[in-house]
Amino acid sequence: MTRDELAARDAADPLGPCRASFRLPDGLIYLDGNSLGALSDGAARRVEKALHAEWGRDLIGSWNTHGWIDLPQRVGDAIGRLIGAEPGQVVCTDSTTVNLYRLLHAALALRTDRSVVVVEADNFPADNYIVQGIRDVFGGAVTLRAVPSTSLVDGLDEDVAVLVASHVNYRSGRLQDMAAITQRAHAVGALTVWDLAHSAGVVPVRLDAAGADLAVGCSYKYLSGGPGAPAFLYVGRELQDKIRPVLQGWMGHAAPFAFEAEYRPADGIRRHLCGTPPVLSMSALEGALEIFDRVSLEAIRAKSAALTQTFLELVEDRAASFGFELQTPRNPSDRGSQIALRHPQGYAIVRALIDREVVGDFRAPDVLRFGFAPLYLRFVDVWDAVDRLVDVMRSEAWAAPAYQQRAAVT
Amino acid sequence: MTRDELAARDAADPLGPCRASFRLPDGLIYLDGNSLGALSDGAARRVEKALHAEWGRDLIGSWNTHGWIDLPQRVGDAIGRLIGAEPGQVVCTDSTTVNLYRLLHAALALRTDRSVVVVEADNFPADNYIVQGIRDVFGGAVTLRAVPSTSLVDGLDEDVAVLVASHVNYRSGRLQDMAAITQRAHAVGALTVWDLAHSAGVVPVRLDAAGADLAVGCSYKYLSGGPGAPAFLYVGRELQDKIRPVLQGWMGHAAPFAFEAEYRPADGIRRHLCGTPPVLSMSALEGALEIFDRVSLEAIRAKSAALTQTFLELVEDRAASFGFELQTPRNPSDRGSQIALRHPQGYAIVRALIDREVVGDFRAPDVLRFGFAPLYLRFVDVWDAVDRLVDVMRSEAWAAPAYQQRAAVT
Repeated sequence: MTRDELAARDAADPLGPCRASFRLPDGLIYLDGNSLGALSDGAARRVEKALHAEWGRDLIGSWNTHGWIDLPQRVGDAIGRLIGAEPGQVVCTDSTTVNLYRLLHAALALRTDRSVVVVEADNFPADNYIVQGIRDVFGGAVTLRAVPSTSLVDGLDEDVAVLVASHVNYRSGRLQDMAAITQRAHAVGALTVWDLAHSAGVVPVRLDAAGADLAVGCSYKYLSGGPGAPAFLYVGRELQDKIRPVLQGWMGHAAPFAFEAEYRPADGIRRHLCGTPPVLSMSALEGALEIFDRVSLEAIRAKSAALTQTFLELVEDRAASFGFELQTPRNPSDRGSQIALRHPQGYAIVRALIDREVVGDFRAPDVLRFGFAPLYLRFVDVWDAVDRLVDVMRSEAWAAPAYQQRAAVT
Repeated sequence: MTRDELAARDAADPLGPCRASFRLPDGLIYLDGNSLGALSDGAARRVEKALHAEWGRDLIGSWNTHGWIDLPQRVGDAIGRLIGAEPGQVVCTDSTTVNLYRLLHAALALRTDRSVVVVEADNFPADNYIVQGIRDVFGGAVTLRAVPSTSLVDGLDEDVAVLVASHVNYRSGRLQDMAAITQRAHAVGALTVWDLAHSAGVVPVRLDAAGADLAVGCSYKYLSGGPGAPAFLYVGRELQDKIRPVLQGWMGHAAPFAFEAEYRPADGIRRHLCGTPPVLSMSALEGALEIFDRVSLEAIRAKSAALTQTFLELVEDRAASFGFELQTPRNPSDRGSQIALRHPQGYAIVRALIDREVVGDFRAPDVLRFGFAPLYLRFVDVWDAVDRLVDVMRSEAWAAPAYQQRAAVT
């Protein structure tokens, strides 16, 4: 493999033109779109509009004239198209963590005869913190069963009320077989809550087809919705009206402007809304989603597999002697859009790379994470990133004191 | 009273120059700052910076270089200065409704020997929906006692775990005596959760001095933080480390980047954070708060009382024959910064006024609400607003079919 070959691949890449829609700083190789997706023209334009033409000029009237009242459902349906959900099953609201709380609560209320929540021992910790919080509130009525994400189905039996799992592991990038696991959960009478944080927008998710019950996800990673963009939740049509939300707010009321004394849940997915949505942040997300109307998820997935595979092969070919250990499944169909490498100097290496304009991130204690956002990454970026990684290792640049010292946020 | 006299008052108004910092449309008389505050230069600039220089250019590094990680506390402390809270007791996070949920939960966990939650029968309904949701989850362990907001202390006895009350009523504008009610609640061993939605930024709130326990509030009304701007919560220092949050997320963990398997709450107010904050929306709020560094809340309060009094007197003087009924306390010290009038044609009158560039709002079934934001309203605006109200009533403009038909959002 040569850089010229990769440049030729870029020239032939059907997604190549998408890069021009993103406002990436010149020279930066951004391998952290799995943590915070880049700013797009669509997002920037939509925020400017929300700021000046909506809030600034039309003020409170924007609830009607600019459809703020439907924004969570409009954005929800746009995300739904990317995760295999027919309209009316997804809303954009709150944070992933809050959404997981409300859906786990709902799932437990639907399975009051059972007490076990199966979680992945190696899931993103915040997902498990939420489950721990619910266990603590419910006292003995809820118990956690932590199983390795590689053997989730082994944790499923007829005591299980709910399984909480990530579609793609935040650290290893391992992709679960959602349909098979959901089927197995249903076979023992359990419900599922899937976290799509690392698959939405980069892996074709098929919630409806998988018979998924409930799901949550993050919109600031591959969806590029902006820092802390509001999250989303999915409730399969069949369950929607069976759930009485634990977070009962005015936006989820059957008649939000009637100011009735008693809460009455709205029909359908809207009942899962609660407070007033952060319109500016949600508008950024709405604008960011526009680009997905012009490309297919299949093309994104194909390029994602090719980018990660290229990175993997180049690292194994050129950096084999530096002690990296692959944490991500070798088969592209078993992973999302990231490659994780373990190395004892992981933190310092990530810092040294950032100084060389290659931005990945570090996950304690020793994981270097590199995310590959197919809409704005080129194959030559992968080449150049590995080139600089080899340089950092060969020169032992990572040993500099500045890189050894931990920053507040890593 | 003449328009010229009011123009002279504007010329002498120490807050007069603040209006130039707001981007109000020409000719608009905006009496709805109690629902959605206007866009300011500070907010617009800060959003532009967050969008382009932070997200767009510095991407993930902004967590460190632009202090996103401390944003909820930084904004929280800035709000704290306006509500009488010493630093370290307020954070900006989530929505008012979600914050009320978590703090009510916390309060009940601190008073497990008691079961009664006192609520205002006429509070903003969403506040009561949250309490109803918690009652439903806890089964018989929690009961609601709804009392009129005019006689809150009558609801307090030694069965009461928590009192949930609004500092200023969303509809009538009535201002509660926070210190006296809190003292009475403490005398019977109850905790208090105050909702500051309609007082933060316009009424000098003195949480610490009142011995308040817990509070929540909204930042898109008089704080002008933007549509759906993230809300805030206050936990008095004494209670902070006694509360184990029910919403346990990574932002509230003692070591958010250590990715520990078990949740450990952070020290202090930070433990009440949960998911990733919506940075663009929170940045708008941070920018909006800048203007409060240049003015005193006492000056704001004085002008607020004068504006509402002027409106009230002009309405009583010039519109007495049209059947309006005052819903707001007549004594300025007993109200926030709004005047509410009841009228059977309230909805249509509000619509007719909006077409005449006087924006108030309507609250079912028959209340016309007019909010007076002292930072950008002039005394002549009050004159002109009443002038147009008289015109709408005299001409019966409200009877037009277009005004009689209800819009989706009112």
